[in-house]
Amino acid sequence: MIISKEQKKPALTGDFKQFIYHFGPKGSKGSAKMKDLLGGKGANLAEMSRMGLPVPPGFTLTTALCDLFYQNGETLPKELFPEIEKSLSQLENLMEKRFGDPKNPLLLSVRSGAPLSMPGMMDTVLNLGLNETTLEGLIKHSGNPGFAWDTYRRFIQMYSDVVMGMNASLLEVYLEDYKNQKGYQSDTDMKVEDWQKTVRQFKETILQDTGKLFPEDPKEQLWSAISAVFKSWNNPRAIVYRQMGGNNHKAQGTAVNVQAMVFGNRGEDCATGVVFTRNPSTGEKSLFGEFLVNAQGEDVVAGVRTPQPILNGSGTGGAKDLRALMPETFDELSELCRYLETHYKYIQDIEFTVEKKKLWLLQTRNGKCSAKAQLKIACDLMDEGLLDEKQTLARLNPTLLEKLLHPSIDTKGEKTVLARGLPASPGGAVGQIVFSSAEALELSRQGRKVILVRRETTPEDINGMISSQGIFTTRGGMTSHAAVVARSMGKPCIVGCEEAQINEDTKELKFKTAVLRAGDVFTLDGTTGEVLKGAVSTKPAELNKDFFRLMALADKYSRMEVRANADTPADVKKSREFGAKGVGLCRTEHMFFAPDRLNIMRQMILSEDKEERQPFLDSLFSMQKKDFQELLDVMNGYPVTIRLLDPPLHEFLPHTDEDIENLVKECGWSSDRLTAKVNQLRETNPMLGHRGCRLAITCPEIYLMQTRAVAAAAAQLKKEKKNPCPEIMIPLVALPSELKILKSLIQVELKKAEEEFQVSLPIPVGAMIELPSACLQAGKIADEARFLSFGTNDLTQTTLGLSRDDSGKFLASYINQELMERDPFHQVDQNSVGELMKIALKSCHEKPVKMGICGEHGGNPESIRFFHKIGLHYVSCSPYRIPVARLSAAQATLEEK
Amino acid sequence: MIISKEQKKPALTGDFKQFIYHFGPKGSKGSAKMKDLLGGKGANLAEMSRMGLPVPPGFTLTTALCDLFYQNGETLPKELFPEIEKSLSQLENLMEKRFGDPKNPLLLSVRSGAPLSMPGMMDTVLNLGLNETTLEGLIKHSGNPGFAWDTYRRFIQMYSDVVMGMNASLLEVYLEDYKNQKGYQSDTDMKVEDWQKTVRQFKETILQDTGKLFPEDPKEQLWSAISAVFKSWNNPRAIVYRQMGGNNHKAQGTAVNVQAMVFGNRGEDCATGVVFTRNPSTGEKSLFGEFLVNAQGEDVVAGVRTPQPILNGSGTGGAKDLRALMPETFDELSELCRYLETHYKYIQDIEFTVEKKKLWLLQTRNGKCSAKAQLKIACDLMDEGLLDEKQTLARLNPTLLEKLLHPSIDTKGEKTVLARGLPASPGGAVGQIVFSSAEALELSRQGRKVILVRRETTPEDINGMISSQGIFTTRGGMTSHAAVVARSMGKPCIVGCEEAQINEDTKELKFKTAVLRAGDVFTLDGTTGEVLKGAVSTKPAELNKDFFRLMALADKYSRMEVRANADTPADVKKSREFGAKGVGLCRTEHMFFAPDRLNIMRQMILSEDKEERQPFLDSLFSMQKKDFQELLDVMNGYPVTIRLLDPPLHEFLPHTDEDIENLVKECGWSSDRLTAKVNQLRETNPMLGHRGCRLAITCPEIYLMQTRAVAAAAAQLKKEKKNPCPEIMIPLVALPSELKILKSLIQVELKKAEEEFQVSLPIPVGAMIELPSACLQAGKIADEARFLSFGTNDLTQTTLGLSRDDSGKFLASYINQELMERDPFHQVDQNSVGELMKIALKSCHEKPVKMGICGEHGGNPESIRFFHKIGLHYVSCSPYRIPVARLSAAQATLEEK
Repeated sequence: MIISKEQKKPALTGDFKQFIYHFGPKGSKGSAKMKDLLGGKGANLAEMSRMGLPVPPGFTLTTALCDLFYQNGETLPKELFPEIEKSLSQLENLMEKRFGDPKNPLLLSVRSGAPLSMPGMMDTVLNLGLNETTLEGLIKHSGNPGFAWDTYRRFIQMYSDVVMGMNASLLEVYLEDYKNQKGYQSDTDMKVEDWQKTVRQFKETILQDTGKLFPEDPKEQLWSAISAVFKSWNNPRAIVYRQMGGNNHKAQGTAVNVQAMVFGNRGEDCATGVVFTRNPSTGEKSLFGEFLVNAQGEDVVAGVRTPQPILNGSGTGGAKDLRALMPETFDELSELCRYLETHYKYIQDIEFTVEKKKLWLLQTRNGKCSAKAQLKIACDLMDEGLLDEKQTLARLNPTLLEKLLHPSIDTKGEKTVLARGLPASPGGAVGQIVFSSAEALELSRQGRKVILVRRETTPEDINGMISSQGIFTTRGGMTSHAAVVARSMGKPCIVGCEEAQINEDTKELKFKTAVLRAGDVFTLDGTTGEVLKGAVSTKPAELNKDFFRLMALADKYSRMEVRANADTPADVKKSREFGAKGVGLCRTEHMFFAPDRLNIMRQMILSEDKEERQPFLDSLFSMQKKDFQELLDVMNGYPVTIRLLDPPLHEFLPHTDEDIENLVKECGWSSDRLTAKVNQLRETNPMLGHRGCRLAITCPEIYLMQTRAVAAAAAQLKKEKKNPCPEIMIPLVALPSELKILKSLIQVELKKAEEEFQVSLPIPVGAMIELPSACLQAGKIADEARFLSFGTNDLTQTTLGLSRDDSGKFLASYINQELMERDPFHQVDQNSVGELMKIALKSCHEKPVKMGICGEHGGNPESIRFFHKIGLHYVSCSPYRIPVARLSAAQATLEEK
Repeated sequence: MIISKEQKKPALTGDFKQFIYHFGPKGSKGSAKMKDLLGGKGANLAEMSRMGLPVPPGFTLTTALCDLFYQNGETLPKELFPEIEKSLSQLENLMEKRFGDPKNPLLLSVRSGAPLSMPGMMDTVLNLGLNETTLEGLIKHSGNPGFAWDTYRRFIQMYSDVVMGMNASLLEVYLEDYKNQKGYQSDTDMKVEDWQKTVRQFKETILQDTGKLFPEDPKEQLWSAISAVFKSWNNPRAIVYRQMGGNNHKAQGTAVNVQAMVFGNRGEDCATGVVFTRNPSTGEKSLFGEFLVNAQGEDVVAGVRTPQPILNGSGTGGAKDLRALMPETFDELSELCRYLETHYKYIQDIEFTVEKKKLWLLQTRNGKCSAKAQLKIACDLMDEGLLDEKQTLARLNPTLLEKLLHPSIDTKGEKTVLARGLPASPGGAVGQIVFSSAEALELSRQGRKVILVRRETTPEDINGMISSQGIFTTRGGMTSHAAVVARSMGKPCIVGCEEAQINEDTKELKFKTAVLRAGDVFTLDGTTGEVLKGAVSTKPAELNKDFFRLMALADKYSRMEVRANADTPADVKKSREFGAKGVGLCRTEHMFFAPDRLNIMRQMILSEDKEERQPFLDSLFSMQKKDFQELLDVMNGYPVTIRLLDPPLHEFLPHTDEDIENLVKECGWSSDRLTAKVNQLRETNPMLGHRGCRLAITCPEIYLMQTRAVAAAAAQLKKEKKNPCPEIMIPLVALPSELKILKSLIQVELKKAEEEFQVSLPIPVGAMIELPSACLQAGKIADEARFLSFGTNDLTQTTLGLSRDDSGKFLASYINQELMERDPFHQVDQNSVGELMKIALKSCHEKPVKMGICGEHGGNPESIRFFHKIGLHYVSCSPYRIPVARLSAAQATLEEK
């Protein structure tokens, strides 16, 4: 167990009743607000009980007990047993059945449920309480031996897997072989004798594989199942899932829900299913989901049989829908959906079971949706009066906006459709076929883009899904594991494409018209469900009115301004579309790397003196002037912060002998001279070397050329009656004296330009604050600056002494071993970098200087919240993160109030 | 002008009298305490006037006027002129002569004099006021035409050089040629006619070279000379000298002293000389110095004629001494020396002139001495009751102690004496011959050791002297430029070796028995004056009782403890001798670079897994155990802080193809595997990479092996009834969590060792604080640590974003352009690194953790003062800096009180 060990230490003595919360027809003392203690499932079962909804009764063992369990060496404290027995009797009384009763046995489900939703990652045991004796009772009481045997074998399969650590595939393979031998198509073809044989064989296999007899005692079953579910909190896939989720990595363990079983597998008037109150892919307001007649819940989710739709047209094709098949149940379900959604003010994802026409709700939770759907639903709920503006802004996770901007398949381009499946998660993905998660991981580590192709995915595939561009399955429905997880990851996904066949031995994926092999590239259009041949071109996302509405709303409430880190006219244009209020960081060096400019830059660098250097500077001047003019024109009226040359000169130079020879040919200098100069410029730690404003201290000509180019571009635009607003930013300032001397050089140059062009050029000069030294002397630096912009990338590197280029090798270990909560290059480290920023801001308090940030953290919601809190005026981030930043800035402002 | 522009802005209007301070027989309102305003020379002339000593009267123009001069565009304000005229008349009245009087003209000296002593760096004009008319007056009044003409030509030479910017060598060469033509040996052979011809030729040459007539108007001469002296504050050699001096770089300009001339060149009963009140080379209490009969002052200092000793046996050999030649003057001078030394409580360096048997004092100042002499004199003055203990400690510059420790020539070794010269500055120097300062600079930049060989040095040689190991001249005496400057630099120096001959054309240095050529290596023994053939071996300095007395005194008064940075038994032993109270930094990685260990280390690093790695770790364990045992034994009873492995592993690996092949042969792995691993470990910014405790987070085995080695070594010594005190230090801690996890691993290992060896091993674990992040979280880190030691080297690199390996290229520009005061790797940057240290200390306030510093700054006096002030408990520095640190720590404590 993780931090909770320290955070809360429940006493091992005392009132063990505190660990148990009941729910059911008598209501509950729990509620939806108690997710931390009861887990999401438990809290919502309690809430539904309070609301008087048809929930099978049961009780929740809290996350505090989970904690105690781990403290107690992964065993349940003995003192708990009598309390659970008391709870069991209450359940028996309500259900009018007895646990372990040979005549009319009470069966239980034992399900995990953590505070954060972790679909399928932890374990569940259904139908618990069956043994040779109670089976007879179930047969007699239900009058349905087939149902009873099916239920028994299900229990044995799940229990042996979850509790006894049995290799589950042994039983699956046996069952599959048995059916094949008999020529059965499906489980429903199995007769009582078949099940009897199967169960006998199951038990034997279990004994052989685990060395243990399958337990007969229902209470032993219950204790062991509860322990197993608690243990599943720390199974590898649950850990990976939490790491992916990020913030909730340290959540407080899982609760366990012990609930009376209701049966969807008792016959043709029984069913089990999943329903979303709206369409989680498009956001459309229409019930969406799937069900299976005569089945138990895991059949739907696991994608073992392709289920029928709740409502036709809402996803899965032709089959009869619930409305047609069970109209009364459909109406009742619709009513409950409406009621739950109004109550929770959020799209709900509901599990239900129909037993002999009686509808039971087994779970409700906020539905995981595609980004587009989340946005639409939030706007719709606002229009429906369920949410006000602030609530709408507050509930959306800012990162979903980035997903909205991902490109989709260009429908106008040429394409060959290989097959159609269910459009489970929208967007376009192009990649090489891989048939296993291991391969997906391996190839993606090599920098390849892959699409994971599986019959169906299971929680074990979590790492493979993370590593893939998209997911494709031949089985499963719109609420299958693959579909749900892909949507929550924002990855394109097509499921249930039954016309395609996977051959794992030959590593082939067969369509009607083509066969693809491992490594072949193909394309998924998760929006339409089309599987496309080869790499199909993608197009930028089209932003809809919901997006612009939300963005306008965000700007209405946020205090901080959002600018873009953008260097090209295309990027600057894009960032205007995404609502940037200016450019916060234009990296001029990127302009020198263009092939036609690089050799000029090289010759400029390699010149021996000013005179030799001048013609190259002149050429670069013309190019930069043109660059700046374009950028300023696109951002007309908004500030464009132009950072003068930053990287070490060595980065521009040729490094291989061949490159040097090529340059020799072009510039006519001797290769000895070039090699010597290149070697002379090589640095041990270039990050801490001769770069940024240090270049200008030793050789001011480059900065002066860039200043002239900015001035000339602005002057030109002013003459065209435009409103260019350039700002000049000096990088890597460590000392107040550096800014002072460079500012005065730049101002002299600007003055000259004003005289030459006869226009006023009031161009502010500021500094990039990216060294601890600069933070510690920010007040003095501010005296020379009109603005200061934190460069949190380099500031993170220097503050933590951590090279971004080199830390990949060990940062993962740091996060795995919980030495760090997050990658500090992703989310600003508040304990170190954040402290320095606070020191800097304090020393600039009440000085007339604008303060911003232009590192990668400018697009990270958590960091933006911090930047708001410490009082920055603006954040600047890459174009595709601008919407994220705008929403985060709004949320930060709202949180403050 | 430098900072004073901003610091003080004297009004251009108002009382101009304030800029002039008189001195002479009527006393002075100035005093020795007013050095900042009057310069050293002016303040001491004022002080001597107050004391009633025979000082030619005059007045001092203050440094505030220098400031005004620079503000006023390098011209004297007109309002000053009437004030100077008033002062002139006072002087005329005192001297009973008139300035410009054709009958009995008053002549003046115009001399620079800054608050800090800059011997010979700025300019002086003597004999000012002579022209065709006053010359006649001087001839008549003195009755000595030879003297008058000599005086006139001296004036013309100096004035044309200093004021008119004339190339001085033109006149020198003419005079030299003239004397050769006539067969004259010396200036005293020149007759009136010769001087007349010479003066005529001088004036013509001046007209040709400068385009200006030599000025006849004495007042014009005076104004121009004053301006020229003010300007000489910023001549290149003065700037270099101040930079070398360091702290006083920003001193406040120079004063100008206008003083009535007295003449040492009026005949055989006249003389001029320099006397030290004690021997500045050995510290012996005996007058020491030189004089020339019938000469003016610059003849002695410039080394043009080899002068006679004040007292035989005190340096310069056989010639008749002042006591023999002018016994009355000698007695009077002795008396005045005693009086001045008692007054100033410091060895005095006095300029005097005898004019017709009348003794005049022209200057007194604290004498520059060799380190040994400074120490001896300080101790002697304490014994003589002139200083108390605290005064003795406070007056010594700590860096001189380092010079004391420099090795000297091993007198027992074989040696061939080529010649003997004057032992001007003690110590042994070995190097290649260079014949010019330019060569010295060039070769020393290439890392070569050189000895500068010159006929005599001039202030232009300052850079060459800085670059050389030692200085050798064939001319000049013990107070010549070369001798004075070398002593103040602590560089071995031999002067006046007249038996050697320099041929600059053939670049040869001829001795009686050998000819050396440029580039040949030879040796100077500055202690004995012996010039030795080839490279003679040196031996460690022998420390005398004065040294130990002073060190004991320092420890008596200092609060901070001094430890050593030392990795080998030899270094540890040395640091004990120098008084270290423990080892503050033992860099264990140095032990792995030994040739017999490197390949084991390499194989350990290149192992694929724990199993393969173990045998190499076992080998390294035995070696480290032995290392630690030796160190702990030498430091028995004192703490030894052992830093676990710090550098990136890549540093240990072979880098060239050849090295890799050699390793392939030794370890039998494929070269592909080795190359791949080497490449994999290569880093873009190794300083910020996978090193320090990060290595242990990903691969704890190395730290555990080192911990076992420390424990085993300590256990062994304990069994021998010794008292080993190891401490384990974790490098590059950025986060509290790192120390927490590693400390607990180490403690488990120590616990195991205690059980195995059956001894208690209470070994404290601490962290090196060398990243900004660690400073900002020091309080939390301290909760896990028994001690924290600032690693100010890396802390400087990260705080300023400045790679020590790469910053050489531009740091010089920073210091030249005054963007930084000092090299931050030499003296801790208080504005940035210092701020972080303060933050760290504040957060550790009242926590039970010992705080020290173990970067290079631990041996820098200014930094040590800062470390004391912020409250560190100890500093640790390299062995040879320990005495410096001990004295600095004492001074810091004394300053506080």
